[in-house]
Amino acid sequence: MSIFLSEKYRSLKAYVPGEQPRDRKYLKLNTNESPFPPSPAVAEAVAGCVGDLNLYPDPEYLSLRSALAEFHGVTSDMVTVGAGSDEILDWCFRAFFTDRGAAFPDVTYGFYKVWADLYSIPYETFPLMDDFSIDPADYENTSRAVVIPDPNAPTGVRLGSAAVERILRADPGRVVVIDEAYADFASGDCVPLTKKYDNLVVVRTFSKSRSLAGGRAGYCIASPELIRDIDLLRFSSNPYNLSRMTAAAAEAALSDNGYFEENVKKICDTREITKEALRNAGFEVTDSEANFLFVRKAGVSGAAIESELRRRGVLVRRFDGPRTGDFLRVTVGEASDMKRFVSEIASAAKTVAETGNLV
Amino acid sequence: MSIFLSEKYRSLKAYVPGEQPRDRKYLKLNTNESPFPPSPAVAEAVAGCVGDLNLYPDPEYLSLRSALAEFHGVTSDMVTVGAGSDEILDWCFRAFFTDRGAAFPDVTYGFYKVWADLYSIPYETFPLMDDFSIDPADYENTSRAVVIPDPNAPTGVRLGSAAVERILRADPGRVVVIDEAYADFASGDCVPLTKKYDNLVVVRTFSKSRSLAGGRAGYCIASPELIRDIDLLRFSSNPYNLSRMTAAAAEAALSDNGYFEENVKKICDTREITKEALRNAGFEVTDSEANFLFVRKAGVSGAAIESELRRRGVLVRRFDGPRTGDFLRVTVGEASDMKRFVSEIASAAKTVAETGNLV
Repeated sequence: MSIFLSEKYRSLKAYVPGEQPRDRKYLKLNTNESPFPPSPAVAEAVAGCVGDLNLYPDPEYLSLRSALAEFHGVTSDMVTVGAGSDEILDWCFRAFFTDRGAAFPDVTYGFYKVWADLYSIPYETFPLMDDFSIDPADYENTSRAVVIPDPNAPTGVRLGSAAVERILRADPGRVVVIDEAYADFASGDCVPLTKKYDNLVVVRTFSKSRSLAGGRAGYCIASPELIRDIDLLRFSSNPYNLSRMTAAAAEAALSDNGYFEENVKKICDTREITKEALRNAGFEVTDSEANFLFVRKAGVSGAAIESELRRRGVLVRRFDGPRTGDFLRVTVGEASDMKRFVSEIASAAKTVAETGNLV
Repeated sequence: MSIFLSEKYRSLKAYVPGEQPRDRKYLKLNTNESPFPPSPAVAEAVAGCVGDLNLYPDPEYLSLRSALAEFHGVTSDMVTVGAGSDEILDWCFRAFFTDRGAAFPDVTYGFYKVWADLYSIPYETFPLMDDFSIDPADYENTSRAVVIPDPNAPTGVRLGSAAVERILRADPGRVVVIDEAYADFASGDCVPLTKKYDNLVVVRTFSKSRSLAGGRAGYCIASPELIRDIDLLRFSSNPYNLSRMTAAAAEAALSDNGYFEENVKKICDTREITKEALRNAGFEVTDSEANFLFVRKAGVSGAAIESELRRRGVLVRRFDGPRTGDFLRVTVGEASDMKRFVSEIASAAKTVAETGNLV
C-alpha cells in the first residue's frame, strides 16, 4: 500500500478469485466454469467483428439488449449489460444499497461483503438455517435492501420465486437483487417477477451456462426505471464497458439455444449422478440446483482433503469459516471427469483420515 | 430515475460519449478512432483464444502486463490493465483523489468532472491560457491531486514532461495522473518519469494509436506501490475486468510494432497537411499533437457548422462552453477523407456565414 491511498480504502480487503493455475495441468473444478467450449456461433461472430475493432462499440449495446429482451420476453428498456455480472452487482450496491444498507446470507457469494466495504455500505447478514436453506422471514423483517443468489453459492440451495415474492412484497420501498448466476441449472427463476415488481433486479451471467467465463458478459433485468438508474452509473464510470467482441460473443451464444440447452442438461444430469455417487461413498452433499456441488466428509478436515486433491491434480474451492470450512465446492465438469473426481475424493478422504487430519 | 436511487446519485450527470450513429453512413471524425483496422495479428490472436472462452481469464493478466512492461522498459509490477483507460482513471479518482480533492484544466476531458461528482470528490479547475496551453504553475501551487491529459483534449496542446516534472516535485505528497491517451501522436511522453517519481501515474489506451477502441483495453504505468493500490480497487470491484479476447487482442496489437508506427506516422503526416490546408482556408487550428484537430472559423457559429457538416454526412464533435463552443474537434482520418473534410468544412462555413449564423 502506498502513502497515497485514500484513508477510505486502507483497510479494504479485496475479493480473492478462484485460482487460475499456471504451474501444471489440473482437473479444474474450482471456479464453476463450463467444461464445454462456447457455441461454434461465437467464433464466427467474434471473427466477424475484429475488422471493426478500431471503432468504439455502441454504448447502448442495443443489439445485444434487444436479443436478451426477446429471449426473456421483456422489453429492451428492461435490460442492461455488464462486463460479467460482477460489474452489474457493483452498480446495484452503489445505486440501491447506499441509503438503505444491505442484507444478505452469512454463507453466500463472498463479493457482497467486499462491495459493501468498498462503498461504505452498512450490511447485516442472516445465518442460513441448519440445512443451508434461506429463511425468507429474515428478509421480510428488515428494511435493508436485499441481495440473494438463487440458487445460493456455495451451497447450491434454491430459495425459489414464491419466497422471493414474499420478500419483494414485505417492503416495496427497497430493492431486492436476485443474483441468478446459476439459475439456468435450477428448477425455476425470478425473471417473470420483473414484470410485476418494480423493486426487483434479476442479475444474470454468460459465464456459466453459456460457456463464456472468459468473455466477460453479464446483464440484468428490471423495471425500466431501475435500468435507467443502473445505466446512469454505467455512463458515469465506463460507458463502453463491453468490447465489440464480448457483445458479439454474447449475442451469438444466446442465439444458439440448442447448444445451450444440451450443455445445461448434460451438466444437470452429471450433477445428479455425481451427487448420488458421492453420497454412496459416504459424503454429505447438498441438493444443489447449480453447476457445482457442496461436499463434506463428516469428521474429516476439508482443508486437508483440498490439499490432497491438489496433490493429485484436482482443484476445488474451499471457503474458510465455521460452517463452510470443511466443505468443498466442486464444479460439475464432464461426466468422465466427475467419475474420476469421485474416485479421487474418496481416496483422498481415506488418505487424510489415515494421516489423522480429523475434525 | 426510480424512487430507489440513492440520494448520492440523484443529481449526477453522466458522461455523454460521442455519437455512434446508426441512421446512415457518415465520415466519422467525432470520437478519435483510428481510421485503420487493427493489426492482422489481432484477428489471429483473438481466433486462437475463442475456444477457451469457457475459462476465466488470468485475473493478474500477467502475459499482457509483462508484454507492456517490456515494451516500455519497466517491470511488470509497474503496470496494470483496465477495460479502456476510463476504467483506470475511475480507479485513480477513487484511490488517490478522495482525500486530497482533484485539480484539472477547465477545458479538458469531460469525464474528470463526472468521476469527481460520482465519488463526491471536491475539485478545482484551472483555466487554460489564451493559447489553450496549461500553466504548470497552477498545479504547482495546489495541494490537490492532479489529472492532466498530455496532449490535452480537446485542444491537442501538449504540456511536456519538463513541466510535468515541476508539478510532480512541487508536492511529492500527492499523486499526479498524466492521461496519455494521445501521447503516441506527440513529440514525447512521461513514461520515463515513472521510474523517478513514486507519485506519478501515466495512463495509456489501445483505443487510438493501436486501433482497438472497440476492444476496450487500457493500462497504466506507475510505481509498484501505486499499482498495488489500483489493483486493490480492481480486485474489489471486477477482478476479471478484461476478457480473454481483449487481453489477446491488446498483446497482439502491441507485438506488431511496425504496423503501429506506420499508422501513427500516417496520422501525424495527415494531421499536419490537414492543419495547413485548414489554416489556408481561413480557419484557426491549434498545434495539436494528438490524432485530432481543434478548429474554429472566427466569427462563425461552431454549432451551425457542426449541423451543416452533419447534413453533408460528416460527423465531428463540439463541446459547449464559453471557450470551446465555436470550436470543432475533428479526428484525423485517412488522407483522402481529410481532403474531403477540408473541402466540406470550408463550404459548410461559407453556407453558414451566408445564412447569417455568425457569433
